Amino acid sequence: MTTRYLEIRQGVLSKNDQLAATLRGRLQAAGLLTLNVVSSPGSGKTALLERMMGDMRKTGHPVAALVGDLQTDNDAKRLARSGAPVRQIVTDGMCHLEVEMITAHLNAWDLDLNTLEFFFIENVGNLVCPTWYDLGEDLRIVLLSVTEGEDKPLKYPSMFYSADVAIITKMDLAEACEFDRALAHENILSVRPGIRIFETSAKKGTGIAELIDFLVHTRAKKYVG
Amino acid sequence: MTTRYLEIRQGVLSKNDQLAATLRGRLQAAGLLTLNVVSSPGSGKTALLERMMGDMRKTGHPVAALVGDLQTDNDAKRLARSGAPVRQIVTDGMCHLEVEMITAHLNAWDLDLNTLEFFFIENVGNLVCPTWYDLGEDLRIVLLSVTEGEDKPLKYPSMFYSADVAIITKMDLAEACEFDRALAHENILSVRPGIRIFETSAKKGTGIAELIDFLVHTRAKKYVG
Repeated sequence: MTTRYLEIRQGVLSKNDQLAATLRGRLQAAGLLTLNVVSSPGSGKTALLERMMGDMRKTGHPVAALVGDLQTDNDAKRLARSGAPVRQIVTDGMCHLEVEMITAHLNAWDLDLNTLEFFFIENVGNLVCPTWYDLGEDLRIVLLSVTEGEDKPLKYPSMFYSADVAIITKMDLAEACEFDRALAHENILSVRPGIRIFETSAKKGTGIAELIDFLVHTRAKKYVG
Repeated sequence: MTTRYLEIRQGVLSKNDQLAATLRGRLQAAGLLTLNVVSSPGSGKTALLERMMGDMRKTGHPVAALVGDLQTDNDAKRLARSGAPVRQIVTDGMCHLEVEMITAHLNAWDLDLNTLEFFFIENVGNLVCPTWYDLGEDLRIVLLSVTEGEDKPLKYPSMFYSADVAIITKMDLAEACEFDRALAHENILSVRPGIRIFETSAKKGTGIAELIDFLVHTRAKKYVG
């Protein structure tokens, strides 16, 4: 039974991979840097993006976002406070985003991709299933909040292994949680050697400028040369 | 594609449901109260169970546990510190437990169910996929940590709707997180009216005795009459 299930899954994945390659081409043709943001529920994806998107717009880096949730459009409303164009994908119970959902929302959206520099996709809160679905992103960003425990990279290695950037969030709570910073870095790096790690607090604004700077430089290197 | 995927899924589920009914009969014949503990990664399932299982043993309520993770046997090692019999299920990437895994581990385990009163199953950290898999439990217990945000029941309603008991964990961090207790209760109750809600801190020991008392009484009502 499990084998059959996995075979079907493989089929779904390879179709997703083909569609992802097409979407990636389209997004790159518009000069976008696309970021797929993944984490557990409650790691602070929306708070981080709200802060970043506001700051990016203020510093002349236009950005848009699609945000996935099982239910509610709370997150899209929060992100829209940044002033950036935002749409909600309600997955109606599905545990991850697939590239078809991204494409369908982009096609139905009166949004000129050529006017943007960055495109965020906030995935469903889930450290497992989104691992397997390429959404046409340039970078996959995984968040780990200080409240979740330093062991999470070891317990959910596939997601951390698939990521290009790791962000430790809610650093303002690090002391209250007795967060072991060195251990967290060690665990992330043991699963994904050499991965770039940032530490942020969306609440205090810590680390946000450095992270934006990194994204701006990554995009410039890709397109400006 | 999605339809076909869901049809297959339906097939997997209905087999799981049949096996769950069989397992439930076996566990109930041994007089066990079986608890399926679900939450996001890092909500504190293991910390809560370690504390509860130690206290339950000390007060004459023998307990055992199976614990699921994608990788590592860290959690089984932590729970074994309570002195109770514990086994790890490594799902090797699978995002939820299925009843076949529970049955297989019980069959291979030199454990006399008749000597136990409580059986905990700590699910994979995931607020979505474990929703759909009955593991033969008597009660499904969902955890929400104060660090995750009060909106999670609204964003992951299927899991909260499927639960019988909700536990708000890490209450020692409530102030640091500016946790809105009334709002969290309101959101949980709006998804699952009438659900019993506990508030705990495994670190401080808050609410643990009350929770154990509830489980002991629930079991007594079921078996002792």
